[in-house]
Amino acid sequence: MKILKKITECKSVVNNLKKKGFITGFVPTMGFLHEGHLSLIKMARKECGRVFISIFVNPTQFGPGEDFEKYPRDIKRDISLAEKGGTDYIFYPTAKEMYDTDFKTSIEVKELGSIMCGKYRPGHFAGVATVVLKLLNIVRPDKAYFGQKDYQQLVIIKRMVDDLNLDVEIIGGPTIRENDGLALSSRNKYLSVEERKNAIILYECLNMAKDMIKKGEKGLEEIRKTIMTDLEKNRFVKKVDYFDFRDPGTLEHVKRVDNDSKNILAATAVWIGRTRLIDNMIIKV
Amino acid sequence: MKILKKITECKSVVNNLKKKGFITGFVPTMGFLHEGHLSLIKMARKECGRVFISIFVNPTQFGPGEDFEKYPRDIKRDISLAEKGGTDYIFYPTAKEMYDTDFKTSIEVKELGSIMCGKYRPGHFAGVATVVLKLLNIVRPDKAYFGQKDYQQLVIIKRMVDDLNLDVEIIGGPTIRENDGLALSSRNKYLSVEERKNAIILYECLNMAKDMIKKGEKGLEEIRKTIMTDLEKNRFVKKVDYFDFRDPGTLEHVKRVDNDSKNILAATAVWIGRTRLIDNMIIKV
Repeated sequence: MKILKKITECKSVVNNLKKKGFITGFVPTMGFLHEGHLSLIKMARKECGRVFISIFVNPTQFGPGEDFEKYPRDIKRDISLAEKGGTDYIFYPTAKEMYDTDFKTSIEVKELGSIMCGKYRPGHFAGVATVVLKLLNIVRPDKAYFGQKDYQQLVIIKRMVDDLNLDVEIIGGPTIRENDGLALSSRNKYLSVEERKNAIILYECLNMAKDMIKKGEKGLEEIRKTIMTDLEKNRFVKKVDYFDFRDPGTLEHVKRVDNDSKNILAATAVWIGRTRLIDNMIIKV
Repeated sequence: MKILKKITECKSVVNNLKKKGFITGFVPTMGFLHEGHLSLIKMARKECGRVFISIFVNPTQFGPGEDFEKYPRDIKRDISLAEKGGTDYIFYPTAKEMYDTDFKTSIEVKELGSIMCGKYRPGHFAGVATVVLKLLNIVRPDKAYFGQKDYQQLVIIKRMVDDLNLDVEIIGGPTIRENDGLALSSRNKYLSVEERKNAIILYECLNMAKDMIKKGEKGLEEIRKTIMTDLEKNRFVKKVDYFDFRDPGTLEHVKRVDNDSKNILAATAVWIGRTRLIDNMIIKV
């Protein structure tokens, strides 16, 4: 496994691999790797001749007062996990390498970037889209892998890639969970023991929504309100940013189950103490 | 010469040329070709094995009430001129081919896109940057050529290409002028005979600025005001959007010539009747 810190170095490796005809896979990460990332690396390993990951805690996708500074980092552990997981190249740039002082470009994916998490984290998805576009241009992978846990991010990136006519296949990998159902996230590290126990409430309320829909409940707005109330009752829940039912393709609100309904996205963002967690579920109707 | 109307068709031609090792050059245009475009095609022809141009009147870079509908079009003449000029491929898509109904992505190059012409044409440079990025992703040229007449556009595209780590060299070609000095533009077609005669005032005032600076005048703000007044006196000038002195690299205002000054950009946008014309000059200090 090789660690590439410079953009030019990474591009030159990529050019060589392209010349040799390798299919390349890419898993962009912010590091502090967990089984979620490793499952994406495993997918890439199966489908591609060479596997790149990036480790870059991207400052531009954090808002003022968010957790950029304290975001967990452990590069040694990451390198070891990535290598064991089957990574060929880690692109590990500094912020200075990615953003020169005159940097001015920003990618907006309209509407999609300002709803759901975007409403509560203004600028977040512009930061994500911009850095992902840069990374895709640097690594030029045939396939890039993103976790479905960040479902809105996945939709936004797919839209951007289509809109900008990029030649990369965007692949979503399943959310990996702890035994009790909590979705893996580097931010779970922030939780106290008690918070950790109670954090399963996100997964529980998604399951509750699924059960109610499976039982034939049609009024999603009513389910939504019931669940919001439930969530807000939990004493470890400081705030519910949203619990929404959305179209999994367009992210538009879905208010009722009807005969045309196929899949429904249930998605939520909840503050457990001072930690903001997200989770979602595709519910088949 | 081949005309490619579909993105997939263009990409497949590009892939074949890349495999064969051709260096490709690209001149994006809105059609209604003139000697300005042809000079860029000639540059590309000299430096590249295969030359692409695009002809696409991009709707997203026109504001409401601007001249998208009446923008001059003559595809037959363009095809003939392009072929004689040495073009190998014309990419000639429809708006529907470029923008599907779910299109949502927009590229902003902050500050640079909202000053000078951007101040008077909000959204214009986001439209330009977005379509140019799409075209660059479709044609994937080694070199892309833009006229220096649209100086601000050239700076914005260079910035975007650097910021997004694209592998294309952006090359500016000199402004081509009529015998009396009027910069070539497809929009010159809008001018009446009388307006056409008076349109040289743009070039004249740029030269006046140059002469004053060459004579040792240091106060650019004073020169600017003098020239603005002069322009506004002309009875064919309906409105002066701006006459500015700027840094040719950063587009920041320059108010005085000092010992550090090297080149100064003088740039102007003037309404001659109902036609908005732009022109600029790099003045060596």
